[in-house]
Amino acid sequence: MANPLLVGFGLHLKKLRLEKGLSQEQLGLIAELDRTYISGIERGVRNVSLTNIFRIAKALDVQASELFQSEAISHD
Amino acid sequence: MANPLLVGFGLHLKKLRLEKGLSQEQLGLIAELDRTYISGIERGVRNVSLTNIFRIAKALDVQASELFQSEAISHD
Repeated sequence: MANPLLVGFGLHLKKLRLEKGLSQEQLGLIAELDRTYISGIERGVRNVSLTNIFRIAKALDVQASELFQSEAISHD
Repeated sequence: MANPLLVGFGLHLKKLRLEKGLSQEQLGLIAELDRTYISGIERGVRNVSLTNIFRIAKALDVQASELFQSEAISHD
């Protein structure tokens, strides 16, 4: 079953990526990650590791904390 | 070789944990993670996954983004 936190993280990543005008393939190339891996994160089916979170943040030119600044993944 | 981003993340986690007055063991119990795993994250030798980041944030009663709000893990 899908983990709603992973799904929320993925949706927020997709939003940030589109704001930067990048395709999944372009983000993958910059971050040195496979396009299918980026796709899996955005669909909430990949449990991405800390080092890859940092790679993706750098590739998007955002702070890692921004990848978590979404209502969908906050808790009370 | 130690990854400076993992080390920075671990130091910041340790700071937040101590601010909450929790031992590694107590945090581990709340987050349902082994104390040695918490120790490894704080020493920057564990590449923690997204689901465990969310567990730790919840256990510390902070937003996941706060785990990344540290000068040591920001980039230009």
